[in-house]
Amino acid sequence: MWRSCGAGARAAVAHGLGRAPPTALCSVSPQDLAVPNTGWSAAMCEQFQRLLRRAADGSWRRIPSYRRGLDYLPEVVQMAVGVVTRPGPRLFLRSVDEEGAGFEYAIFLHASGHRTQCLCQLGPYLEGHHGFAHGGAIATLIDSTVGTCALAVAKASVMTAKLSISYLAPVPVGAVVVADSRMERHEGRKIFLSCHVRDTKRDTLYAEATALFIQVEDTKPPPAASL
Amino acid sequence: MWRSCGAGARAAVAHGLGRAPPTALCSVSPQDLAVPNTGWSAAMCEQFQRLLRRAADGSWRRIPSYRRGLDYLPEVVQMAVGVVTRPGPRLFLRSVDEEGAGFEYAIFLHASGHRTQCLCQLGPYLEGHHGFAHGGAIATLIDSTVGTCALAVAKASVMTAKLSISYLAPVPVGAVVVADSRMERHEGRKIFLSCHVRDTKRDTLYAEATALFIQVEDTKPPPAASL
Repeated sequence: MWRSCGAGARAAVAHGLGRAPPTALCSVSPQDLAVPNTGWSAAMCEQFQRLLRRAADGSWRRIPSYRRGLDYLPEVVQMAVGVVTRPGPRLFLRSVDEEGAGFEYAIFLHASGHRTQCLCQLGPYLEGHHGFAHGGAIATLIDSTVGTCALAVAKASVMTAKLSISYLAPVPVGAVVVADSRMERHEGRKIFLSCHVRDTKRDTLYAEATALFIQVEDTKPPPAASL
Repeated sequence: MWRSCGAGARAAVAHGLGRAPPTALCSVSPQDLAVPNTGWSAAMCEQFQRLLRRAADGSWRRIPSYRRGLDYLPEVVQMAVGVVTRPGPRLFLRSVDEEGAGFEYAIFLHASGHRTQCLCQLGPYLEGHHGFAHGGAIATLIDSTVGTCALAVAKASVMTAKLSISYLAPVPVGAVVVADSRMERHEGRKIFLSCHVRDTKRDTLYAEATALFIQVEDTKPPPAASL
């Protein structure tokens, strides 16, 4: 729903957009998870290498991905709010510890800043109907892909206002898919986007979606409800 | 995306609809997770008890919820396919082990079979923007709530065909919400539904959605793609 660059960091630093490498200011450097691990299938690794090769000329760029939303903030901001080492929240797509069990993904941003592609392996913990990914998992993948694109367009905090998804074919658990998102229109604070989720050979269109994101002012987030 | 009663079990047994208690046929009785645990907040427990009291007259019924999609199948079917003790897939909403960290929820079905209410506490592992639930988590909650309603209407396998969500207010991490879904129209194999997500006091409308589910023939699920 929300994507933010964080107070005092309104440039496109969230989701690793323009993010500087960790510095000595940070006591705990977040681990970039958008790289191969033992849970990645051969197909996932192959597609990842293909996208890296395509990015070699600078037309696309891989965006780092972290465990917690706060890890996307510049270290100096993390230090200021005193949350660098605090355990607790996790980015929804990174909620599963076991490599390969949940979302394994890497998002690539086009040099124009108006297009993102998310390579994603949907693990067995994302199941809905036996053998297939949950509709909510597909929605999560789409929301994250278009949200990252909207962030790059807005260069400021954005939030999902509308998300409409047509599910065209079930996605088998374990499948590797590509969610391809682009900005369609930018009107004031409104950013309209589209997204298509296909298999890596582009033989099957699993889902198509439209989204509206709103650029918002950075606000101090409220304390989480007590658990 | 998909909701199914499983081959040979087309009555409303999926998601615990009409589900019989485990029998001696089952070597491992699945644990019903739609009951309080140590991760439930006081607010969650209070609302759960309120809904249980409301259900006392038979107008509503709590639906059990399990870790794996296969746990929703009758034990005799589980035994037949030899998957009772096999580890692996998990229902997306039950992918997190830590009590209170992910989705904590219980779905109630109205006696008419045309309405469901899902009481849900959104844990810190469902975060998007710092302090707020991810848009994909809200979509997952909605898809599951309307999907359960569609199952009860169809009394057969259903799949999400379309899901359109308007995000009206961000949901703080840790919040307890109620997703209220109802069948709006039933035309042949098409089931049209609506859903509203509110806080428990009904002061805030967090999201509203429409969904189209399609009743499908039971098919043998394909093997999951190799990981």
